[in-house]
This record gives sequence, C-alpha cells and structure tokens, in this order.
Amino acid sequence: MKTRAAVAFEAGKPLEVTEVNLEGPKAGEVMVEIKATGICHTDEFTRSGADPEGIFPAILGHEGAGVVVEVGPGVKSLKKGDHVIPLYTPECRECDYCLNPKTNLCQAIRSTQGQGLMPDGTSRFTTLDGDPIKHYMGCSTFSNYTVLPEIAVAKVREDAPFDKICYIGCGVTTGIGAVINTAKVEIGSRCVVFGLGGIGLNVIQGLRLAGADQIVGVDLNPGKKAMAEKFGMTDFVNPSEIDGDLVAYLVNLTKGGADYSFDATGNVKVMRTALECAHKGWGESVIIGVAPAGAEIATRPFQLVTGRVWRGTAFGGARGRTDVPKIVDWYMEGKIEIDPMITHTMPLEQINHGFDLMHEGKSIRAVVTY
Amino acid sequence: MKTRAAVAFEAGKPLEVTEVNLEGPKAGEVMVEIKATGICHTDEFTRSGADPEGIFPAILGHEGAGVVVEVGPGVKSLKKGDHVIPLYTPECRECDYCLNPKTNLCQAIRSTQGQGLMPDGTSRFTTLDGDPIKHYMGCSTFSNYTVLPEIAVAKVREDAPFDKICYIGCGVTTGIGAVINTAKVEIGSRCVVFGLGGIGLNVIQGLRLAGADQIVGVDLNPGKKAMAEKFGMTDFVNPSEIDGDLVAYLVNLTKGGADYSFDATGNVKVMRTALECAHKGWGESVIIGVAPAGAEIATRPFQLVTGRVWRGTAFGGARGRTDVPKIVDWYMEGKIEIDPMITHTMPLEQINHGFDLMHEGKSIRAVVTY
Ligand SMILES: NC(=O)c1ccc[n+]([C@@H]2O[C@H](COP(=O)([O-])OP(=O)(O)OC[C@H]3O[C@@H](n4cnc5c(N)ncnc54)[C@H](O)[C@@H]3O)[C@@H](O)[C@H]2O)c1
Ligand SMILES: NC(=O)c1ccc[n+]([C@@H]2O[C@H](COP(=O)([O-])OP(=O)(O)OC[C@H]3O[C@@H](n4cnc5c(N)ncnc54)[C@H](O)[C@@H]3O)[C@@H](O)[C@H]2O)c1
Repeated sequence: MKTRAAVAFEAGKPLEVTEVNLEGPKAGEVMVEIKATGICHTDEFTRSGADPEGIFPAILGHEGAGVVVEVGPGVKSLKKGDHVIPLYTPECRECDYCLNPKTNLCQAIRSTQGQGLMPDGTSRFTTLDGDPIKHYMGCSTFSNYTVLPEIAVAKVREDAPFDKICYIGCGVTTGIGAVINTAKVEIGSRCVVFGLGGIGLNVIQGLRLAGADQIVGVDLNPGKKAMAEKFGMTDFVNPSEIDGDLVAYLVNLTKGGADYSFDATGNVKVMRTALECAHKGWGESVIIGVAPAGAEIATRPFQLVTGRVWRGTAFGGARGRTDVPKIVDWYMEGKIEIDPMITHTMPLEQINHGFDLMHEGKSIRAVVTY
Repeated sequence: MKTRAAVAFEAGKPLEVTEVNLEGPKAGEVMVEIKATGICHTDEFTRSGADPEGIFPAILGHEGAGVVVEVGPGVKSLKKGDHVIPLYTPECRECDYCLNPKTNLCQAIRSTQGQGLMPDGTSRFTTLDGDPIKHYMGCSTFSNYTVLPEIAVAKVREDAPFDKICYIGCGVTTGIGAVINTAKVEIGSRCVVFGLGGIGLNVIQGLRLAGADQIVGVDLNPGKKAMAEKFGMTDFVNPSEIDGDLVAYLVNLTKGGADYSFDATGNVKVMRTALECAHKGWGESVIIGVAPAGAEIATRPFQLVTGRVWRGTAFGGARGRTDVPKIVDWYMEGKIEIDPMITHTMPLEQINHGFDLMHEGKSIRAVVTY
C-alpha cells in the first residue's frame, strides 16, 4: 500500500513529506495507522546529523499513538481496532533483560532496530521508485501508516485522545518513569530538576505524584518558571542569577543536598552539578539527558565514596507494554496532566515548522496529527 | 599519664617512637589500652604528606583493638575491661545520618575529628614538653593508650585475638561491607574485583560469603593470584597480559558484564574500567579505593543511561557499633578468614619497617602488637 510520510533523505536537511510504499505486516508484526505523533529532541538529534549512528534515508518519529489496522501471522496480543502506542523500547517478556526486574532494556530486537530494520532484517518502507527507506527506533511515527513488531506495541484504552497520549510514547513516560521506576523517590523527598523542557516538566509532575516535599527547578531560561510551577515546582533557580557556587547554593536551598536530582538538559557539566548537589550519604542523581557524541561526565570519586549514587535512565525505566497503559490511565483519571504541554498541533505538511518551534524554544511539545 | 606512641611529627618523615602525655577521658569518653593495630594505606597517605588535609604532629593509626581501662563521666555502654575496636566512623544513633538507613556516615563528631581533636575541641595528647599532638581519624591507635569518644567504640567478644581482629577496624569491614552493605550482592552474581591487596582480598571473601557464582580478580601483580584464590577468586586477569580492550575482555569473561564490580586500587582509570565492565541494564560498580588528591573519574553518560550504576563506599557502609561485633563473630565462627592476611607482626619500635613492607608490596597487613 501507499502512505504519506515525512522522510529524512539526508542528514541536516528538512524532512520531505511524500508518498512511500509500505509492505504489510509479516509474522509477529502489526500495521498501525498513526493518528498523532510528537516531535522529540531525539528525532532532531538524528535529523541534524549529530547522531553518529543515524542512518538515511529513514522515516523518523517515535512518539506516536494510533490504531491497529492489520495483524500479521502469529500475533496474539493485538487485534484490528486496538488503540496503541508504539514502543521504541520493546518488551518481549522473554529475554534475559525482561526477566531481570532491574532493567527495562529488552534486547530481543536490538540489533535490527539499531540498523533501521524490522526483526527479520528487512525494511517495510520503500520510495515510490522502490529504493529502501529505513525504520527509526523501531517506530517511524512520521508516517501515517507504519509496521511494528508486536512486542513493540502497548495496547491502551480507547477513550484516550491520540493527540495527547502520543506524548506518553516518550516524554511523559521518560520524565515520570525516571522518578518512579529509576529513582524510586519516597514521599517527603527534596529534589532538584535541571532543565525545565518537556522532559523536566514531566519529572516535576512525577515528583508531585510521588509526594516530594521540595521540587527545585533549575533553568537558564526564566520563561520556563511559570509552567514548571503549574506542574509542582516549589523553587526556581536561574544559575545565571546565582553569585558564587551553584552546588553550594543548591545544597543550602535543599537543607543539605537533594535526596534525588535529575539532569534533563543533556549537558555534561550540568550532570556533574546534579550529582554534586545530591545529599552526602544518600543522594542519588539520575541522568536523563542525552549528551553530544563523545562528551564525558566527570567528578571526584570522593563524591561517590561519601555516599552519592550516579545512575541513568532510558525511557524512564518503563516496561512499555506493562507501564504505558497505566500512565494512560493516570492521565485519563487526572493524576497527571498532559494538555498544557502540547503547545502546538499541526498537520504532517508542517512538520518542519514543528522542528523550528523546538529550536526556537517556543514549544514544549509540537504534535503532528494525521 | 604517660604512654608510648609512634608520633608523626612532620609530613614525609618516619614516625618517631617516644613517650607522650595522655590525659584521662572526659565526659562521654573512654581510655583504651591498644593491644594491636594494623598499618593501613590511609595512615601512609597522611604520613607521606599526600593527604591535603593531614595535620601534624599527630598520632596516626586507625585499625586497632584493645581493652577499656577507664571510662569518663556519663559513659553508659562501656565499662572497664570491655574488649573493643575503635571506630573511625562513629555511630551515635541520634544524628540525621544514623537515623537514615541509607548511610553509615555518622556526622556527630565530624568537624572536630577532622581537625584531630576530641568532640570538646581539645586534644588528650601532648609531648613531654607540653606541646599538643593531634588525634587521627578519632582513633590514634599507634599509641599504646588512647582516648576515644564512647560513640566511636565497638564492644566485641572477649575470646577474639587482638592481633587478628584489629584488622576488622578497617580493612576487613571495608571489603566485606562493600559487598554486603553497599552493593548488596545477591547469590549467583558474577563479579569483578580490581586490586587484590588487603581490601580486594576482603571483597573477594565477602563475595564468597554472599554466594557469588563468579569472582574475577584483576591485578597487575601476578604474585597476588595464589592468595586471592584461597579467598575465593575463580578467575584471575592480569591486564598487562590482555591483548586489546580490557573492558571487552571482562564483559566476555563474565558473559555480558559484571553484576557488581569493585575498585580496590584507588586508580581513577581503573574505576572507569570497573564501571564500564559492569553489565548493561543493571551492573553496579562500587568505588572503594581512595584516589590521589584532585584526581577525577570520567565516563560517557551513555554508560549510566543504559543502566549501569556508579556508587562508592566508606568503611564498607558499616555502622560500627552494630556491625563490627557481628564481623568479629563471623571470624570466630570461621565464616571469614583473617589469619592468612596478617603477614607480619612486629613491636611498635619497628613500625616504620611495617610501612616499608607495605611500600614494597611484601605485606598484606603488617600488625603492630604492644
Ligand atoms: N534518557 C531518555 O530516555 C530520554 C528520552 C527523551 C529525551 N531525553 C533527553 O532529555 C533531554 C531533555 O529533553 P527536553 O525535550 O526536555 O529538552 P528541552 O530543550 O525542551 O529542555 C531542555 C531545557 O534545559 C534548559 N537548559 C539548557 N542548558 C541548561 C543549563 N546549563 N542549565 C540549566 N538549564 C539548562 C533549557 O533552557 C531547556 O529549558 C534531552 O537531552 C533529550 O535528548 C532522554
Ligand atoms: N573506601 C574506604 O572506606 C577505604 C578504606 C580503606 C582503604 N581504602 C582504599 O582502598 C584501596 C586499596 O587498599 P589496599 O590496602 O588493598 O591497597 P594495596 O596496595 O594492598 O592493594 C592494591 C592492589 O591494586 C593493584 N593495582 C594497582 N594498580 C592496578 C591497576 N592499574 N590494575 C590492576 N591492579 C592494580 C596492586 O598491584 C595491589 O595488589 C586504597 O586506595 C585504600 O586507600 C578505602
């Protein structure tokens, strides 16, 4: 069949909205009609050419929601008409990783996914001339129709709006999951969040949900303050307004240091500050941000020997098929908010404008609806 | 009263064995007759002048065992005749740190201890000329008699030999505790230990006690292999004999990476290798070694984002008054071994020879008996 898609033909170039060919689902795969997709920094990381592992041409997009329109042979957990969220971190429930309660990094289809291919080593997308186009993060939600492995699809309730819950496919789950699954923040904790973008705001609402007593937000952009306060931030710190050492300032503000700190900037210097403002003896710092290729974090080992812990999180430590439907429920029950974060909605034709808004810092999340 | 002690009068100079004055215990303090003391790298770090926080003149030594000979006013938990181990990490059971189950870093007397003073801000030691001499790590076990705060003394059983259990005052507890309290290693784990000195050997016997399936020891000195095998090492790796990348070699040897890795070298490059050979998704790396002043650890944040955890440990995460008596019991019950690690015993007069043996790598632990 044919489908409309925004194709990244070359690194650094705008996406090209065009028709492409899509083969139907093979064994263990499903075809999904994408109804909405967010535009995330990771898509831009690849589009821009900054990602050393980027492959072109490819159909980007990994933050979608839609409806199953066809299932391949052997598919058991999904049927036509199911509402779903594609998962860039699958959940096979059979590999060593899925069977280890300490991780969510299912490895079942990792190598083919990394090569932009379906698990059988081929692509379902071709140009109208028949040239292959690669999948992206196993999702390719910048195509109106896409094919996904069954294990990379979370089934969700049918009354949830696609143009909001698509955000649960990455940003919401990453931020809230970092708090709940990775840090396991306890009620009454004092926390510091660096970066109040789409991820940081979700960390903040995760902390509110977890019952944190103090939620300090740190951002160079004072324009981020008002929105972060809506989501539960109790204190705002603009590093450019602090005289002297930011670590000392934050340790003082949190009465000894953060029980938990989070980097949602991707800046390795910020990651160091986040670790060092954690409380001596027990403070844990979680890296969410994705650093530029080759960048390194550093600190004095004494920081760890005196009890601080340094960790990271991918997809908020969430097991997609199990956890994503729960987060959709939380949204529908009003436990978490998404609507104010979807600042822009646009048709696929304007997707490059969505990337511009992100660059200009004007959007929290721009969503494409089909 | 007068007591014999080895005094560090100046950084970089040998210790001087001489008589000094010792005041009796004040409120909340006890006087202990030290019967035996180990010589640890931390003593040498200070003696040599490498420790930027070293203070002189001081009486070093922090790995001792002895008998209470006098108690000051208000002391409740100890009496004359009790067998004890001095604690450089006290346990007041009242401060925010003691009340937080995540840490052992009691802060009750931290600032005075760091200044080489008793909690009231004064020293009990003076030269025969009346010049003050500083305490060290709150212990000063290189003096035949010393004064300690009650909260810095663990009471232990009376049938345990001083010249062996003194080692529990630092090395044994640090190594075994890193496994049991800090990493909380589970039965069946695959582990890698870097550095097979006094600390590394105790990590290894801690891993055996915890039921680890694979215990890989890494040391540049092949002479360390035989002893480490006695304590439970299953595989030995000499980095200088490995072609290519040590991380890749260790990941392969452990079938995917270490569930837990430990640095017991103090080398920041080794700390990085230890982190990076930990298993993707869940491997945890624990820093025990003390790095040179100013040295920094570094890695790519991707190592943490993909699930590795970086932590450190001080005194093996042990709460001294609670945990040290248990470790003495384990030794007396044959659950752990100490005797083969006490390679040299000498009188106080030969303490500088003990430091020489350490430098030459000839001793695992040299112990001074009074
Ligand atoms: N680990 C994961 O699974 C995962 C998933 C999605 C996104 N991410 C990463 O999370 C990071 C944040 O994503 P986002 O969408 O929120 O980005 P964003 O650009 O919307 O937000 C980043 C915020 O950080 C602030 N900032 C930048 N430098 C700063 C500094 N030095 N000090 C303080 N604040 C600073 C910016 O002003 C901005 O508000 C990115 O690196 C992204 O790649 C990680
Ligand atoms: N965190 C704590 O509470 C604590 C307590 C006591 C000691 N320590 C520290 O633990 C460390 C180890 O102490 P120790 O008494 O066992 O020292 P040690 O000198 O007896 O042993 C160190 C071992 O590491 C090996 N080694 C050195 N460089 C190496 C390398 N690049 N690769 C592999 N092996 C290497 C040496 O050959 C030696 O066998 C020291 O840094 C010490 O200061 C920490």
